[in-house]
Amino acid sequence: MKKIAVLTSGGDAPGMNAAVRAVVRYGVRQGLEVIGVRRGYSGLIDGDFVKLEYKDVAGITEKGGTILRTSRCEEFKTEEGRELAAKQIKKHGIEGLVVIGGEGSLTGAHLLYEEHKIPVVGIPATIDNDIGLTDMCIGVDTCLNTVMDAVQKLKDTASSHERAFIVEVMGRHSGYIALMAGLVTGAEAIIVPEIPVDYSQLADRILEERRRGKINSIIIVAEGAASAYTVARHLEYRIGYETRITILGHVQRGGSPTAFDRRLALSMGVEAVDALLDGEVDVMIALQGNKFVRVPIMEALSTKKTIDKKLYEIAHMLS
Amino acid sequence: MKKIAVLTSGGDAPGMNAAVRAVVRYGVRQGLEVIGVRRGYSGLIDGDFVKLEYKDVAGITEKGGTILRTSRCEEFKTEEGRELAAKQIKKHGIEGLVVIGGEGSLTGAHLLYEEHKIPVVGIPATIDNDIGLTDMCIGVDTCLNTVMDAVQKLKDTASSHERAFIVEVMGRHSGYIALMAGLVTGAEAIIVPEIPVDYSQLADRILEERRRGKINSIIIVAEGAASAYTVARHLEYRIGYETRITILGHVQRGGSPTAFDRRLALSMGVEAVDALLDGEVDVMIALQGNKFVRVPIMEALSTKKTIDKKLYEIAHMLS
Amino acid sequence: MKKIAVLTSGGDAPGMNAAVRAVVRYGVRQGLEVIGVRRGYSGLIDGDFVKLEYKDVAGITEKGGTILRTSRCEEFKTEEGRELAAKQIKKHGIEGLVVIGGEGSLTGAHLLYEEHKIPVVGIPATIDNDIGLTDMCIGVDTCLNTVMDAVQKLKDTASSHERAFIVEVMGRHSGYIALMAGLVTGAEAIIVPEIPVDYSQLADRILEERRRGKINSIIIVAEGAASAYTVARHLEYRIGYETRITILGHVQRGGSPTAFDRRLALSMGVEAVDALLDGEVDVMIALQGNKFVRVPIMEALSTKKTIDKKLYEIAHMLS
Amino acid sequence: MKKIAVLTSGGDAPGMNAAVRAVVRYGVRQGLEVIGVRRGYSGLIDGDFVKLEYKDVAGITEKGGTILRTSRCEEFKTEEGRELAAKQIKKHGIEGLVVIGGEGSLTGAHLLYEEHKIPVVGIPATIDNDIGLTDMCIGVDTCLNTVMDAVQKLKDTASSHERAFIVEVMGRHSGYIALMAGLVTGAEAIIVPEIPVDYSQLADRILEERRRGKINSIIIVAEGAASAYTVARHLEYRIGYETRITILGHVQRGGSPTAFDRRLALSMGVEAVDALLDGEVDVMIALQGNKFVRVPIMEALSTKKTIDKKLYEIAHMLS
Repeated sequence: MKKIAVLTSGGDAPGMNAAVRAVVRYGVRQGLEVIGVRRGYSGLIDGDFVKLEYKDVAGITEKGGTILRTSRCEEFKTEEGRELAAKQIKKHGIEGLVVIGGEGSLTGAHLLYEEHKIPVVGIPATIDNDIGLTDMCIGVDTCLNTVMDAVQKLKDTASSHERAFIVEVMGRHSGYIALMAGLVTGAEAIIVPEIPVDYSQLADRILEERRRGKINSIIIVAEGAASAYTVARHLEYRIGYETRITILGHVQRGGSPTAFDRRLALSMGVEAVDALLDGEVDVMIALQGNKFVRVPIMEALSTKKTIDKKLYEIAHMLS
Repeated sequence: MKKIAVLTSGGDAPGMNAAVRAVVRYGVRQGLEVIGVRRGYSGLIDGDFVKLEYKDVAGITEKGGTILRTSRCEEFKTEEGRELAAKQIKKHGIEGLVVIGGEGSLTGAHLLYEEHKIPVVGIPATIDNDIGLTDMCIGVDTCLNTVMDAVQKLKDTASSHERAFIVEVMGRHSGYIALMAGLVTGAEAIIVPEIPVDYSQLADRILEERRRGKINSIIIVAEGAASAYTVARHLEYRIGYETRITILGHVQRGGSPTAFDRRLALSMGVEAVDALLDGEVDVMIALQGNKFVRVPIMEALSTKKTIDKKLYEIAHMLS
Repeated sequence: MKKIAVLTSGGDAPGMNAAVRAVVRYGVRQGLEVIGVRRGYSGLIDGDFVKLEYKDVAGITEKGGTILRTSRCEEFKTEEGRELAAKQIKKHGIEGLVVIGGEGSLTGAHLLYEEHKIPVVGIPATIDNDIGLTDMCIGVDTCLNTVMDAVQKLKDTASSHERAFIVEVMGRHSGYIALMAGLVTGAEAIIVPEIPVDYSQLADRILEERRRGKINSIIIVAEGAASAYTVARHLEYRIGYETRITILGHVQRGGSPTAFDRRLALSMGVEAVDALLDGEVDVMIALQGNKFVRVPIMEALSTKKTIDKKLYEIAHMLS
Repeated sequence: MKKIAVLTSGGDAPGMNAAVRAVVRYGVRQGLEVIGVRRGYSGLIDGDFVKLEYKDVAGITEKGGTILRTSRCEEFKTEEGRELAAKQIKKHGIEGLVVIGGEGSLTGAHLLYEEHKIPVVGIPATIDNDIGLTDMCIGVDTCLNTVMDAVQKLKDTASSHERAFIVEVMGRHSGYIALMAGLVTGAEAIIVPEIPVDYSQLADRILEERRRGKINSIIIVAEGAASAYTVARHLEYRIGYETRITILGHVQRGGSPTAFDRRLALSMGVEAVDALLDGEVDVMIALQGNKFVRVPIMEALSTKKTIDKKLYEIAHMLS
């Protein structure tokens, strides 16, 4: 193997750059030429390639976002799109491709292998943490700390006033971030897509806590469960006092990655190159305990992570 | 003088605790008894008082919010309310009152003096920075750094995607936070209550920058000028691509105060006690350059801070 | 079971408070009375006990250090000391004890069980991460992020000057923090107790990198391998230019815990109470992958973590 | 005026990049060509120049250090060195020079004007804050927050143990950082070069506080007053218990600049270009209150800032 490529795709996640750095530097150390594909699968179709040398990835580990940029590419979801991509790969003599991204991106990688026998290795990077067989995805830890810090600031002001604060966080299909953020900040309520919300019960609980002397409440809601405005409307009507809203939005995708995410990304980058060199493809690098293992991409994608309902109960018990 | 009291009132601001600490500890060192009034003017009317000793304010400098809690008190806006408050003050033998808060709180302090000759000294604490004759108010610097950090995180992800990001920040009547945050982060546009917004022109500028290669834009809007949703609706229609919204809300009021805010608050607390001891009342402590001075409360309140239009232009020139 | 106790012992670690909170709140929810033991084993011997209610542990999750305080207790290392401790436990009707600490503290817990049949459950909390059978100990993640942030700041100034910077970090017997911090910051060299250092070779490498254009170097050294001053003396002599020293010291033990450490601590606290209720004692709660398990204390302590030599090589390869 | 140059010199300070950005972008907007001089005065002598376009300074505001790099240049301290520099400036048709740095750098700028009539404007940037006539220098606010955060972390662990912690901070001739950091963190003692230290008295005070129940002490010492080790030796002998040392070193020079430093730097950069365009040279831009003014460089340098002894006393009174 002489030439490999690396791309980032889908929603960006902090740590993607560290993974790119590891693929490039470790690849070069193994005698490979490493190509960066810009703008994810769009760049793959267009042949938007750039050779990445050792120095080109200096000082990027600490940066949020991705220096390769990313995109959501509709064309690649079609057979024609993927065929164009495969042609570019072959035309440029690329013998292996590392795909860094979430569910959609990894599905795309698998199809490239299945339809065109492109040797692909996936690296799970998505703040949703909704990919199976790996304990963690790149970006989750940073995202969670960002949300935690924001909620912690809210708590300062919440203790000074008598109000309910509603924080909307990321998570279209997964309540992972909401649950974990609620747990580590002691939020009074956590609303996630996986568990139906009962506003009457929620309002009763807030009123009950208020009677016992608690003067403020923080409610964390995953965007996929409800919007902060919906929650506010339901609650204000029932509890009879003001709520205040925070919508963190894409702030949650940014920030310099935490030590955990950097380490995860650097190791996964190295492991992905090793997998390509070993000829073990159509796999995703996964963290299991303290070990990095290779799992079939489709097996990872079909093993859906579910929310830890015991942890959900504990979060409410400890709040 | 043997006994003084201190209260925090209105919207809370990071650094209020440091000011309370300084009033208590410096007061005690000067041989005074110091009373903490809980829940601002509401507590003053109700006589919700607590004696504060040296140790009671240990470890509070670094905390956001206010340990005395705060409130917006409608009753105190009436003559009857203020009379009740004055009675409590006299009943408890309190000979001087330090009021820490923003415009409304300081107005209240002045009226207490005017109507009932209560010796008051004000300390300007409000993240709006809309009080005259002082270079800075307590809390502004921390708030600004919080907003800056959030926008900086947005920039990470903005550079990875092709989108416009709209961030709504505090400022009902003042665009100070929006302007300064936009300046220090290089935001593409800043919308403030003091300067009318022309959405056509704004859209044109974003499209023009896009033509010159810029793939993302960050627009900061003060809540008093427009809501993030209004801006989004206006822009999406004109620029033809997606926007993403962040509403920081009360997160901006929290956080451990910066060194600047702690220093400002500690010095102002000391100066307030000195003013009471000197018998110089109905004044507000103000920062002018590197000096702390005493200015008549009403003069400070009637000298409205206006937005620095040259700085507004510079912010756009440098972005 | 009606009454349990909890103590923190040895060097403090961020997250200890979150563990205490979980033991108290989850314990109370299970109908238990929970006693806090102050100053670790010293307080156990002296009977320095305090009943902890639900509200007593409000707002402590985010605090560094430990509200119960800690100590290194020589007396408890003797049979007589442990006998006194066991008497206190029995005298107060305490039926289970949760010990939160590192190697020495857990050894003490085991001896309490072995010698006096006190039902103990251990929670591993030490920034050294040198306890076996658990993927992580409480405090490590926060410590690592603190070190990473400091080194990141050094890199800013290192890029502006032509100098070598030496950073001494914690780790008397374990190079874990040094290795991980070096990996995630791309340090030029990492010196750990587990691997002998060859200063000639190190100096050659720095001079070689300098010839290739690199104008600065960061060397991270675990305190157990050498002092920063020793490294400086060896290097300055050989490379012929100035070095600058940073000794982070106990700054590394402080700070508000990261999301990871909070979650780890909260879950371990809950699991420890469950173990006591199940009557499964002389065990330590361990994180293995995404699961919390119970392992015999002595098995955990006798399974020494060794440094990951492959990771050590990768750190140098990617720097 | 058609062509100007900008350089950073001496010890680096967070915010230097923001000043460079403002000089470049505002200069270009005014129709000027802007040259960056690399490595401070060394680069000026060697002609190490690079044309800086609008885009070249994108994304640098948030970076610590200086993209132009800096140096301490012995040659420039000689008349011959400055003559060589003046020749380079004239040879390249540079009609104005902005010098960003501390005392030595600004002295050099003044001599360039005095000896060779080079139109120079200075911008005060040094974490020592030892330049007269300006309320603040670029970098001080960031440095102070870094020190404050480190001490705050120490306090976490200090509260858990019974020990004295000694923190050595920057300040060869000025105790400004030590004083302010001690003030805002409530340190038990502050040792500065401007005020002689009496170790007996210091030890007595620590022992006295201990008797009153305080179990820990934090002592902040400016490097110019004593080394942390010297303080430790003096204290351990007298107080009879262990001390722990932290030496922050160059960590204090790094970090992303605070909002205050960014704003200061951006405005000073703009003002420097305006001064050059107005033909007002041999001046330094200074912050006085909320205004930026031009002061003669030598007047600023000869007006030494002294430590605020009242503030020093207050710091000890409030601790």
